[in-house]
Amino acid sequence: MVAQWLETLLSRDPLAPRRAKFYRWFIMLAVVAFTGETVLDTVPGIFGAWESVVILADRLFLTVVAVDFFVRLTAAWLSSARWQAVVGYVFSPFGLFDLIAFAPVALSDLLGWPHDVDTAFGILAFLKLARYSPALETLGAVLLSEWRPLLSAMFIMALLVLFTSTVLYFVERDLNPGMISIPHAMWWSVVTLATLGYGDVVPLSALGKVLGAFVGVLGLGMFALPASILASGFTEEMRRRNFVNTWHLVAKVPFFAKLQAAQIAQLAALLKMQRIISGEVLMREGDDADCMYFLISGQVQVSGPAGTFVLKAGDFFGEIALLQHCQRTATVSALTRCQVLVLDARDFQQFTDKSPEILATIRATAQARLSQGEEQTS
Amino acid sequence: MVAQWLETLLSRDPLAPRRAKFYRWFIMLAVVAFTGETVLDTVPGIFGAWESVVILADRLFLTVVAVDFFVRLTAAWLSSARWQAVVGYVFSPFGLFDLIAFAPVALSDLLGWPHDVDTAFGILAFLKLARYSPALETLGAVLLSEWRPLLSAMFIMALLVLFTSTVLYFVERDLNPGMISIPHAMWWSVVTLATLGYGDVVPLSALGKVLGAFVGVLGLGMFALPASILASGFTEEMRRRNFVNTWHLVAKVPFFAKLQAAQIAQLAALLKMQRIISGEVLMREGDDADCMYFLISGQVQVSGPAGTFVLKAGDFFGEIALLQHCQRTATVSALTRCQVLVLDARDFQQFTDKSPEILATIRATAQARLSQGEEQTS
Amino acid sequence: MVAQWLETLLSRDPLAPRRAKFYRWFIMLAVVAFTGETVLDTVPGIFGAWESVVILADRLFLTVVAVDFFVRLTAAWLSSARWQAVVGYVFSPFGLFDLIAFAPVALSDLLGWPHDVDTAFGILAFLKLARYSPALETLGAVLLSEWRPLLSAMFIMALLVLFTSTVLYFVERDLNPGMISIPHAMWWSVVTLATLGYGDVVPLSALGKVLGAFVGVLGLGMFALPASILASGFTEEMRRRNFVNTWHLVAKVPFFAKLQAAQIAQLAALLKMQRIISGEVLMREGDDADCMYFLISGQVQVSGPAGTFVLKAGDFFGEIALLQHCQRTATVSALTRCQVLVLDARDFQQFTDKSPEILATIRATAQARLSQGEEQTS
Amino acid sequence: MVAQWLETLLSRDPLAPRRAKFYRWFIMLAVVAFTGETVLDTVPGIFGAWESVVILADRLFLTVVAVDFFVRLTAAWLSSARWQAVVGYVFSPFGLFDLIAFAPVALSDLLGWPHDVDTAFGILAFLKLARYSPALETLGAVLLSEWRPLLSAMFIMALLVLFTSTVLYFVERDLNPGMISIPHAMWWSVVTLATLGYGDVVPLSALGKVLGAFVGVLGLGMFALPASILASGFTEEMRRRNFVNTWHLVAKVPFFAKLQAAQIAQLAALLKMQRIISGEVLMREGDDADCMYFLISGQVQVSGPAGTFVLKAGDFFGEIALLQHCQRTATVSALTRCQVLVLDARDFQQFTDKSPEILATIRATAQARLSQGEEQTS
Repeated sequence: MVAQWLETLLSRDPLAPRRAKFYRWFIMLAVVAFTGETVLDTVPGIFGAWESVVILADRLFLTVVAVDFFVRLTAAWLSSARWQAVVGYVFSPFGLFDLIAFAPVALSDLLGWPHDVDTAFGILAFLKLARYSPALETLGAVLLSEWRPLLSAMFIMALLVLFTSTVLYFVERDLNPGMISIPHAMWWSVVTLATLGYGDVVPLSALGKVLGAFVGVLGLGMFALPASILASGFTEEMRRRNFVNTWHLVAKVPFFAKLQAAQIAQLAALLKMQRIISGEVLMREGDDADCMYFLISGQVQVSGPAGTFVLKAGDFFGEIALLQHCQRTATVSALTRCQVLVLDARDFQQFTDKSPEILATIRATAQARLSQGEEQTS
Repeated sequence: MVAQWLETLLSRDPLAPRRAKFYRWFIMLAVVAFTGETVLDTVPGIFGAWESVVILADRLFLTVVAVDFFVRLTAAWLSSARWQAVVGYVFSPFGLFDLIAFAPVALSDLLGWPHDVDTAFGILAFLKLARYSPALETLGAVLLSEWRPLLSAMFIMALLVLFTSTVLYFVERDLNPGMISIPHAMWWSVVTLATLGYGDVVPLSALGKVLGAFVGVLGLGMFALPASILASGFTEEMRRRNFVNTWHLVAKVPFFAKLQAAQIAQLAALLKMQRIISGEVLMREGDDADCMYFLISGQVQVSGPAGTFVLKAGDFFGEIALLQHCQRTATVSALTRCQVLVLDARDFQQFTDKSPEILATIRATAQARLSQGEEQTS
Repeated sequence: MVAQWLETLLSRDPLAPRRAKFYRWFIMLAVVAFTGETVLDTVPGIFGAWESVVILADRLFLTVVAVDFFVRLTAAWLSSARWQAVVGYVFSPFGLFDLIAFAPVALSDLLGWPHDVDTAFGILAFLKLARYSPALETLGAVLLSEWRPLLSAMFIMALLVLFTSTVLYFVERDLNPGMISIPHAMWWSVVTLATLGYGDVVPLSALGKVLGAFVGVLGLGMFALPASILASGFTEEMRRRNFVNTWHLVAKVPFFAKLQAAQIAQLAALLKMQRIISGEVLMREGDDADCMYFLISGQVQVSGPAGTFVLKAGDFFGEIALLQHCQRTATVSALTRCQVLVLDARDFQQFTDKSPEILATIRATAQARLSQGEEQTS
Repeated sequence: MVAQWLETLLSRDPLAPRRAKFYRWFIMLAVVAFTGETVLDTVPGIFGAWESVVILADRLFLTVVAVDFFVRLTAAWLSSARWQAVVGYVFSPFGLFDLIAFAPVALSDLLGWPHDVDTAFGILAFLKLARYSPALETLGAVLLSEWRPLLSAMFIMALLVLFTSTVLYFVERDLNPGMISIPHAMWWSVVTLATLGYGDVVPLSALGKVLGAFVGVLGLGMFALPASILASGFTEEMRRRNFVNTWHLVAKVPFFAKLQAAQIAQLAALLKMQRIISGEVLMREGDDADCMYFLISGQVQVSGPAGTFVLKAGDFFGEIALLQHCQRTATVSALTRCQVLVLDARDFQQFTDKSPEILATIRATAQARLSQGEEQTS
């Protein structure tokens, strides 16, 4: 029972009980506060008379972070796998981040290590937040799959830095104190090619300025390469992850259950998952229609000429406006937290082309809803 | 009657009477002038001897802005919904912007509040322009749909700023007055990662410069992420809005009336709406052909071998050159303001593949026009 | 006869006689030299003892530019349209650029206007080069078709500049001489949002730096919008122009003559035009194959196991490696300047799917060539 | 025999013996160390007492680089082509880079040329690394295929620099020592348009700042053009190269042997090559499935309910989860270095649509594996 309580406490399912969300935000705030305090602490005398209060708060945050580690350790121990789960947790990246977030600082306090060690490890505590953001994981996947073009771009950059700094060194070495050696000129070269332009080293001779102008323009093109490789890799990876998520969601909807796996893959590419908070209005009667919805979890309330009724997980809505190319015929709002799959008007035809049986079901439902509305209003 | 006059005055329909356009531009100019005056007013003595004139103009602009609010309030009151429309207007974002644009400044003048309040609220008046630009709305939609990847990118950025500033702090704290604490080093770190490079803080030691160069290059890649996420989200949202607009336009054309909603969605993805001013020449006889047009509103004049005739909303033109792969056979110019849907040569085949009945109509019309031209010239 | 000689002299057709190319380069060099001289002339005493020589050269360049105008005027006069062509030329943008390039400077010299007028108009002569680069035209088309999103982006930028400068002004006005008024703070704001970072105005207070850091990051995202809108518009416009060019080229090839216009549009989207200089080697026996070629103009020589033969405009080559998925079976080099349409291996299947009759022709030709090669070698 | 040994030593095939890899890394390190020493050598007294050691190391690296040249020369001589191969090597770009990397420095040492010559040629040695990175070749291909839009962008930039610097020169020439002539103002203009913003020249007058702000914003848009042209060209070229590589790999797999060349081209566009190191785990039982694999070379071990077995080049795996839309049913790890072709879940349907015979084979294999598993576990 304790095991189950802990499991739901640590759960990241959007449908988990409310305490999971509170616990998550509590830990996140503690980590941010702890890191923030470590950063500010390097400014001498910043806390003034409040120093003792801040130190106390700091200890408190550290305790919270430590407790979180032991909560997770206990949850692992209470799972069916026991020792294996504990070891698996401690040596996973997230487990290591949890440990690093408090152990070294505590140790350093106990053993009286210099304050710098505290600072360095306090900063590392920020990594604990990686658990709540898939960004680092995504970035890792991108770096892994794009390391070849990135390396190519790095090689071109290295060549550019090397050659431009050598040329500027030969031109300006006798008159520019910032270019008295190639390594000095390299600092200028990187600052220019990265379009930083600190201005601490600037070509001084006319020839140096002409060459420097070319280097600046060159940099725009060449240094844009890794940026665009990373950006497109990141976008691609996000899309890929969304596809796999949607793919698994679609398979769970009873409505799509009779479809073959290959068909599901096609539909998943067209649908987009969206989270709706309780009370949010998804469409208003009379609005222009640009999509329809499949309800994955939660409940929505439909109010229209056919009266008010409630839709549950597995139902769909918003199809009438797409089928008849008219404006919304009802207002739909969320009664609980919901997950919906959104199908754009643009993709509707492609979707129904690929699964005519689904189109038939949607048509029949729309027909039933409309005739119900007519009875009601007549 | 007043209600209708006000409605057309405030209308944004491109086919509304001319006074709507004048009123729109008048309000926009008043807002820009009022904001401009507020901005310039912070420069001491900038208006010199003209100060009294400027203050008078300022009052005038403020009055215009206030009158606009009451005009819109009256228009709401005169609509069928009465109180509901009035409340709806005042509490809509645009209504609030209209109110904020003049009420606080007027109040502050009445109650003798400090001049700073005038300045701050005068700047806010600029938001009134949001009504005339869909940009803010689009931006909001983008931030809403892309907040997840943006948050991921923000987390990576925060990590980068935190770690790079900590490292530089440890390397340079004893010799660089700009890096005497981690917060100080963070200023350098953000300025470098954003490729700003003010140059007020610069690494001074050799090791600091080597690390700083890496940070500069890193920044190019990492800080490009949010830029590209926002840029692609913005482009996608603009396209989506255009699609929905075109979708509704297509449905209004009698020519497309017999099509099913799903077919309309397909066509809408291929067509692009374009506004033409009166007198503009759409094509010239002998030009290379790259598209055909469907006329949504307004009138165009066609002058060719078949003589001169006028086309009205619902007609199409420019199809002969696409069907026969030849140069333009007539010159077409707009007689009035027009809206046309443009179909690129590249998409013509895809378009007619998806609706063979439309191709038949286009073919028949082209045939009729050509034979008419032959009779005329023979 | 003079008319024809002038016409070929001014022709930009890649197959025009050699003197057209020489004349083009001669005019371009004269314009660049003239503009360069005007620019350098603003540096006092830069030419030293050579001043009189430079002035002479300047006069010479001016004469060349003037003669070019009269040559073009004569060519227009000698055309069949006479006065109409002359007026059309003088009032076309390129005609105006030609006139502006020399007339005001000459006039200013005659009437003894101040030297500044010479400088200003000398710089404008550079516009004469626009004739030889389609860039300005393309840019105009992009600005025309993308002015709506660009205006939206401008509005967001204006909002950002206005609000960030107001905030920083209130924070720093008393301590920062660079932010003593909102217009002063706007200079900082633009310099920061454009990621320029001159460093002449920098926030000085802690709060100002925190806010400034946010502005810097914000700028990365917001100011990337117009850049990406322009960049994608430019790319799209270039592709569109290439499509129309290819479309007209395809229609001229006898091989594609029997196709319908709609099919040509499909093929044109897959083919890419490429210019080949005389002597260039297009493929070498044994190379990996990634495309096939259709010869539009010029001649190529094929050397393989089947001996050496010459292909002329309308022929195709490189198809065997694509059909049999093997390496190149012959070496092909250009005997004259050529224009070819390139079809990528990736698009080959799509191409032949859409026009099976062409595939049949290609197959038959490949078969004939192979059996010929076997006879030869056996 | 020596010839074969040398050939494998210099081979870049990922399946070549281990000594090839060691030799490759050895040469790369020697080149990097040699270039690094040359760069650092320009800092007076940087090596201090170690100077003699460094000079010795430098000589050693130079010898290694020289030996590499002669090894490659010998390998060329020992090939069947003899003299032709030797000449071909020496006059190939890579051969020239190999020669330049040591010959001029050695010559300069022998003849006592000034030290600057050593430095300049020592930097050029870095080009020897080009052999190990396809980046330079790719960049060359991009510049070749995109020179037209790049030239267009350059022309617009030149116009911008010319006009903005002229305007600022007229506005600020009397008060700004950095804008006393147009060439001086051009330095500011380039630094601003490239968003460098050194801050050494900054507009000083109010009008100059207003114009400068516009130039800064303009620069963002205009200078983004070449960056995005290059970036998209680079990405396209990488994709093209990958396609051709995959195309040749697919043709080698016996499983795809019965397909026609055109079908192979279609499949190649969907598959992605990936290198796997020995011991790497490709999938774990219970994981979410998002792709299937075709094994090109090497061996993998499959452990699942059907026991443990080994797959060899030509086999495929991971298909069950895609066909049945379930989680992974087995764990797969690499026994040797492997090359696999990856097929995403998203593209699976498209893939099997285009080659139904392959789908039948995959289905049959999956069925056999599953029934084997049931026998095993029952």
